[in-house]
Amino acid sequence: MKYLVGETAEGSAVFAVTGENAVNLTALDPNVGSDLMGVIEAGGLSDSVAAQIVDAPKVAISSITPALPVASPSAIICVGLNYTDHIKEGGYDIPEYPALFMRSKASIMAAGQPMVRPSCSETLDYEAELMLIIGKGGRHISEADALDHVFGYTVFNDGSIREYQRKTHQWTPGKNFDNTGAIGPFVVTPDEVPEGAAGLTIESRVGAEILQNSNTANMIWDVRKIIAIVSEYTTLAAGDMIAMGTPPGVGHAKKPGPRWLKPGETVEIEIEGIGICASPIVDEKDMTV
Amino acid sequence: MKYLVGETAEGSAVFAVTGENAVNLTALDPNVGSDLMGVIEAGGLSDSVAAQIVDAPKVAISSITPALPVASPSAIICVGLNYTDHIKEGGYDIPEYPALFMRSKASIMAAGQPMVRPSCSETLDYEAELMLIIGKGGRHISEADALDHVFGYTVFNDGSIREYQRKTHQWTPGKNFDNTGAIGPFVVTPDEVPEGAAGLTIESRVGAEILQNSNTANMIWDVRKIIAIVSEYTTLAAGDMIAMGTPPGVGHAKKPGPRWLKPGETVEIEIEGIGICASPIVDEKDMTV
Repeated sequence: MKYLVGETAEGSAVFAVTGENAVNLTALDPNVGSDLMGVIEAGGLSDSVAAQIVDAPKVAISSITPALPVASPSAIICVGLNYTDHIKEGGYDIPEYPALFMRSKASIMAAGQPMVRPSCSETLDYEAELMLIIGKGGRHISEADALDHVFGYTVFNDGSIREYQRKTHQWTPGKNFDNTGAIGPFVVTPDEVPEGAAGLTIESRVGAEILQNSNTANMIWDVRKIIAIVSEYTTLAAGDMIAMGTPPGVGHAKKPGPRWLKPGETVEIEIEGIGICASPIVDEKDMTV
Repeated sequence: MKYLVGETAEGSAVFAVTGENAVNLTALDPNVGSDLMGVIEAGGLSDSVAAQIVDAPKVAISSITPALPVASPSAIICVGLNYTDHIKEGGYDIPEYPALFMRSKASIMAAGQPMVRPSCSETLDYEAELMLIIGKGGRHISEADALDHVFGYTVFNDGSIREYQRKTHQWTPGKNFDNTGAIGPFVVTPDEVPEGAAGLTIESRVGAEILQNSNTANMIWDVRKIIAIVSEYTTLAAGDMIAMGTPPGVGHAKKPGPRWLKPGETVEIEIEGIGICASPIVDEKDMTV
């Protein structure tokens, strides 16, 4: 199943994507809810709703304004350095344990929404990432069981203000500027992709300019390992999101460079089989809200 | 006003503390709600409720089981190194910008609840900290305006698993073990303490053993500065919590040491004029839930 959470005239709704069209599942059954939490907590779509999809009215995907797949995840956990070559371009040694940090709700927004370059720094950078959404929560999840805890996969752009990421050894400020982390728009269930979402092409670009191009098979810690490592210290909850780190090619390491994102550009992250997360770059001073 | 959020037979309620006793404000007016968010969002206690306190029934504070002052803060932001001497004992240089990280909801618990030493590491350490709770949210809050955005102050024990804090340069795992960050039990409004809660004795101890003893006047970045720095990158929301860093004397730096917290001990953090946050240390394997 490929899901899309989006805004309609009646508010936020969950859609099932069928090619270029989509079915409003919330309209079929209000119990589906306004984001994916209802489906996640129910362990999937009910048989009765699923059975109605084929004959249900369709709307064009292009008519739907994407919203966050989960409106208020209890945690957004990010792996900082998970592709060998990206670690080298950042000047870090290859570690024995992943660099983990968190993002706040204020820092994320749906695909299609403006990615805001703050007034205080021009060092806005992109990071193409696979993101997983936890289905069944838990603690001390083994690698063997880890994939049973994944509800689905989506696309993430871990937009970063490098100047603030490196003000101290803790990356949190640079990773948490308002409206810099883009999520979505599509969430695919694990049956739609290879095991652990491995082996998928991942790319970032601005127009025809390819900025990053790699494959999710190149991660040091795969989805199984990350779930085991993270759940060693924290109880994962349904709807929690884990961003799996970015491949080489980020703007601060470009030669010649750096290659910062500029207002007026639209950055796209694409992961094979999942979709494209596009974010127009807007200067903070030009934001009306 | 000194508030206490706690469990009663009827569920969670907000109390006003009057000496050794407390008045159940939620019983006076259900609109007060089950934690402080209602009062925070209303900009304080209503005049009608406040007027009833003096004649209302009192219960002993000792009969109330503390709960989190805000059950689900949208962000818990922590300052890592904010007392000069603590920075030196940790082997860090004095920075020009605060080290900031976040804690998840899963990592915190109310005062009085067990602080859990995980099975994977014995390196459980205490950190006495002043914590502020945001009243009026905002972005780009100036130092001059910052104190207008504080609802109140409470006590925090930033329990840390040092081994995991230092597995990489990012502290997140070691700062986010389940049930290691103790908050409360009392929240005092700004009028109850000196401006910015500066000049208060802050201490941590186990029984008669004084572990940390300092003063909130010794911070490098005071409350005004931290609110300005944090709100430069993120929109603060009502109920958000900011932990202000810890003074010297943490266990990993004790000589001879280290001095880790052990199951069976109770660690207490006391801040003058606010209260004592006590946490019994329990081994993860002995937790029944």
